[in-house]
Amino acid sequence: MVLLIVEGSRVLAEIESLPKRVRIFDTTLRDGEQTPGISFTKEQKLQIARQLAKLGVASIEAGFPASSAGEFENVRAIARERLGPEIVGLARSTKKDIDKALDADVDAIHVFIAASDIHLKYKLRMTREEALRAAVEAVEYAKSHGVTVEFSPEDATRADLDYLYQVVKAVTDAGADRIDIPDTVGVMTPTRMKYLTKHVLPAAQGRIVSVHCHNDFGLAVANSIAGIEAGAQQAHVTVNGIGERAGNAALEEVVAALEFLLHVNTGIKTELLYETSLLVSKLSGIPIPPNKPIVGANAFAHESGIHVHGIINNPFTYEPIRPEMVGQRRRIVLGKHSGRHGVEHALKVLGYPTEPDIVLAVLKEVKRLGDMGVRVDEDTFRKIVEEVLEKREEKRSSREFEALQKSA
Amino acid sequence: MVLLIVEGSRVLAEIESLPKRVRIFDTTLRDGEQTPGISFTKEQKLQIARQLAKLGVASIEAGFPASSAGEFENVRAIARERLGPEIVGLARSTKKDIDKALDADVDAIHVFIAASDIHLKYKLRMTREEALRAAVEAVEYAKSHGVTVEFSPEDATRADLDYLYQVVKAVTDAGADRIDIPDTVGVMTPTRMKYLTKHVLPAAQGRIVSVHCHNDFGLAVANSIAGIEAGAQQAHVTVNGIGERAGNAALEEVVAALEFLLHVNTGIKTELLYETSLLVSKLSGIPIPPNKPIVGANAFAHESGIHVHGIINNPFTYEPIRPEMVGQRRRIVLGKHSGRHGVEHALKVLGYPTEPDIVLAVLKEVKRLGDMGVRVDEDTFRKIVEEVLEKREEKRSSREFEALQKSA
Repeated sequence: MVLLIVEGSRVLAEIESLPKRVRIFDTTLRDGEQTPGISFTKEQKLQIARQLAKLGVASIEAGFPASSAGEFENVRAIARERLGPEIVGLARSTKKDIDKALDADVDAIHVFIAASDIHLKYKLRMTREEALRAAVEAVEYAKSHGVTVEFSPEDATRADLDYLYQVVKAVTDAGADRIDIPDTVGVMTPTRMKYLTKHVLPAAQGRIVSVHCHNDFGLAVANSIAGIEAGAQQAHVTVNGIGERAGNAALEEVVAALEFLLHVNTGIKTELLYETSLLVSKLSGIPIPPNKPIVGANAFAHESGIHVHGIINNPFTYEPIRPEMVGQRRRIVLGKHSGRHGVEHALKVLGYPTEPDIVLAVLKEVKRLGDMGVRVDEDTFRKIVEEVLEKREEKRSSREFEALQKSA
Repeated sequence: MVLLIVEGSRVLAEIESLPKRVRIFDTTLRDGEQTPGISFTKEQKLQIARQLAKLGVASIEAGFPASSAGEFENVRAIARERLGPEIVGLARSTKKDIDKALDADVDAIHVFIAASDIHLKYKLRMTREEALRAAVEAVEYAKSHGVTVEFSPEDATRADLDYLYQVVKAVTDAGADRIDIPDTVGVMTPTRMKYLTKHVLPAAQGRIVSVHCHNDFGLAVANSIAGIEAGAQQAHVTVNGIGERAGNAALEEVVAALEFLLHVNTGIKTELLYETSLLVSKLSGIPIPPNKPIVGANAFAHESGIHVHGIINNPFTYEPIRPEMVGQRRRIVLGKHSGRHGVEHALKVLGYPTEPDIVLAVLKEVKRLGDMGVRVDEDTFRKIVEEVLEKREEKRSSREFEALQKSA
């Protein structure tokens, strides 16, 4: 389905085979927690997992059980809460890692091994053949324990295309339930991501293909959408886009783009996006930048005269969606870029009179302070208005006094 | 030109007619400053303009001269510095606005009028025909004064396609030198942006077509790239992606993607991206989020054991480019996700011994603190190491003492 943005029947894009529904695979607690400097306690992880369940994600990657004793406990605690979404544990392609994940009682294991030559040579010191064998054995071993298995050929987007195809085909034959395409260092563009997804798709033989995009060039959300346009039916995301380096594709952005721009169902209660973002920001200690899409303080804020004028007449002039749809609210801000309509609106909201001469006098002062670099908050605004009203009263009194004298 | 990411000759994408060079049109001082709450002083605007000139942008949109007396002064001051890049002033499609821009001594005027029906109806209360006439008259008037004229049909991405084509053709016939396609409320996806750009291109009759993308769904950078892949040769950007609501396409991300992923020349000295970002962050008061691509503190930071191991063997395992290429540096962070290699690296850097038993004892303590939610900074790390070395010394002493007693 495609959103038409013009009247008539002309389609704005040739989007092939958009799925009706996309699985949201959240990895805030795994790849998100790998953000340098972030460490969630067990209680924090549980709190986030409960919020993700409430939000409606399909999968929660709870952690990497083999990475530490504490991490194992965390994943097990989340798995045992039976929150509803599938609980996933990460594992390298070794029996030891898979056993740890199984012991943690997860519903699904996310098995991975590097696929690019640079990773094979400099990190794993394995040949392509050795890595392929390890991947197949790991998938078979995990499947023999009855869990769902998702397989990631790490650094897929820098791997040899033929080898990548071969790996995906082999692990699918070995029983993998889902195939993920990780853009591990974020080097894809949407055009390339479409191409790569289409290339991998046949090797997955009808299993769900997922995308896992990193944001090193600011393209993670777009690359995720591109993969979905090309046939992927799942996206790995993190709340607020936290994660290794520049982070992962942001859950709130991928979901909003899918739901509101492409009309694809994600199963997410979008009106809970804002509170979910605030929770993860608080617990991770990473503030939400004001210009963050969807959840930033400015995402639905307006100051400039032209924009505020439009918004007051019809919010859709300068807002793509109603802020309430993502749990947000509209903010009208005053400053050097304000115009008459913004000031009139603020006067009305705060219960002041809105005669044209008052509006103009207040606007003049707001702009004068703005030019000096002063931010006009509510207190400052009230002071400006009180002064304007006082001066106006003085003038009126002195005029009345003069008139009285003349008539006397 | 296309970057091949696999060996052999297989092309990863069907990118048509990528230009050799793209003009970077910076609007940090105009659309960027329209960020609710931001107001630059004249001195701050000058400081940013000088940095942009040093960085190598093609155009600096210095402001909106008709919006206030102070703003007029700011734009004129920047224009009169003759910094090198083209200095642009914004103007509505009225003689008054254009006169103000001319008086401010700018090299180019960015003339705009709304093109979408929702803007025409609820903001301008004009018919399509009236707006078209105003646009043509404004372009003719500005051109008659000898300046370069760039024209923006505001909210182009929600306009009727036939009307949009008609407006672009008419203003081009009227003499406009460049045509900009603004995605005013950020509703494009890369697929749609390609389609729209190709649609508009013939109407521009060989003039440079530009894209101006907002980030409401996190797609601004990708949409800019998509427009360029479809034939646009200029991108409007702001440093750190500041701007109305969720902001504009971020200069540093668009430039890095063009230069390093698509090998398109932008004229930008990429090694100055980081210092430019820091300056704008300081003067705008908007902090750079740690997971901001290219310029964030974490953009080249690594904590997890697997990643640090890779990075130490070969940085390209987990970094798409050398951090120095954008003026950044690599950071190795310690925490609950650390592994042996990260600890060994840190011990080496700080001049401590790196015997395996020391590495393992320190790693154990780092992970234990990490599981408790403690962030291991340099001071904490030093304390951990000192304690481990002390205990080791005690053990050795007591072993020597026992040995002495036995031999005695």
